[in-house]
Amino acid sequence: MAEQKKAGQKKAVVLVSGGLDSVTALAMAQADGFECFALSVDYGQRHRSELDAAKRVSDAAAVPLKILPLDLRAIGGSALTGDIDVPEDETNGIPVTYVPARNTIMLSLALAYAEVLGSDDIFIGVNAVDYSGYPDCRPEFIEAYQSMARLATKTSVEGGKMTIHTPLIDLTKAEIIQQGTALGIDYSMTVSCYQADDAGRACGVCDSCRIRREGFSAAGLTDPTLYS
Amino acid sequence: MAEQKKAGQKKAVVLVSGGLDSVTALAMAQADGFECFALSVDYGQRHRSELDAAKRVSDAAAVPLKILPLDLRAIGGSALTGDIDVPEDETNGIPVTYVPARNTIMLSLALAYAEVLGSDDIFIGVNAVDYSGYPDCRPEFIEAYQSMARLATKTSVEGGKMTIHTPLIDLTKAEIIQQGTALGIDYSMTVSCYQADDAGRACGVCDSCRIRREGFSAAGLTDPTLYS
Repeated sequence: MAEQKKAGQKKAVVLVSGGLDSVTALAMAQADGFECFALSVDYGQRHRSELDAAKRVSDAAAVPLKILPLDLRAIGGSALTGDIDVPEDETNGIPVTYVPARNTIMLSLALAYAEVLGSDDIFIGVNAVDYSGYPDCRPEFIEAYQSMARLATKTSVEGGKMTIHTPLIDLTKAEIIQQGTALGIDYSMTVSCYQADDAGRACGVCDSCRIRREGFSAAGLTDPTLYS
Repeated sequence: MAEQKKAGQKKAVVLVSGGLDSVTALAMAQADGFECFALSVDYGQRHRSELDAAKRVSDAAAVPLKILPLDLRAIGGSALTGDIDVPEDETNGIPVTYVPARNTIMLSLALAYAEVLGSDDIFIGVNAVDYSGYPDCRPEFIEAYQSMARLATKTSVEGGKMTIHTPLIDLTKAEIIQQGTALGIDYSMTVSCYQADDAGRACGVCDSCRIRREGFSAAGLTDPTLYS
């Protein structure tokens, strides 16, 4: 997956969580020829091993990783940052693992970073198919975000046109896994579980574990996830 | 300026920086009947006395203040957070005191807080007249942000319509000061200077000091600012 930096290569900021989707988005951005800069946010998530995974996948892709601390626990309102338990079975409606305005916040930090880098391209691994019901993973949200971003920055005033790339948005989890595997990703580096232990072992029962397992199964590929 | 909380009163998140504009926006939100929740971001700004001012104005208005730490110095790119000097004379173009994507980031944090509070209303004291050339103070930016916000959250899926209120957007600095004074604001509590000292005394020479001084002068009111 690692690539050499080429002269004149366009820069992109890639939001990397350490999960299956974002590492695939990163590999796709590199395959598209971008010089990538990974950005993770340490928002006080329960699954701290995500950040270790973000480091592993960035290293494997030979891209720099910036981790921004932003403690969203001060705002609360989610099972991923607050005191609500992560549910084992939640298939209807918007789950309690939804973090208020998370993608809006992440994209805004990526926007600032892109502007500083002189980049007009941001990649985010959102997915509208197996998206767990999060409102900020929908195509209409991304489109509205891009319109706003094109008015938000100094770059935009100077003629830049920020693009929010969502290469996974129309793919099933199985297709994401198949395409990522074809790009050489070792998914054992990634952590999807909402409550993985410190060693990155998945619980096997949360919503995210269920979607990941079904994805590998549908893709006809071996699931390399370590379960606790 | 302080008001009693009334039963059934609508909640609003108000971005409060401790400057002249945001305290006026807060007073206007209260005058409109909102139960206000002030939000400040400690983004590593040079003018730390801003945060003390935010506390003073929130206390005077009898509203709770939440200060979120988000160190934007890790991203860089501004005289307000980085190593660039604050200029004394900068009247053309976008100033180096512009913080990349600042209002986008602030509004996104306010959006998360509003969602947790069950509020559909955010106030921000941006101003397009004496706006120092910041792209994220323009009406078209705010309008695009609001469209995006209406697709971003759980609340929006459930029928909520987030409104970004910008009561100052069409006012001159003099009009802001006149209207705020009529609402009973004591502007000596506020700090506008980009490089105020720890006691909150203004430098008197930066862009923000110049705009503030001209505003009081045009309003025909005494400038209560303490200069160093």
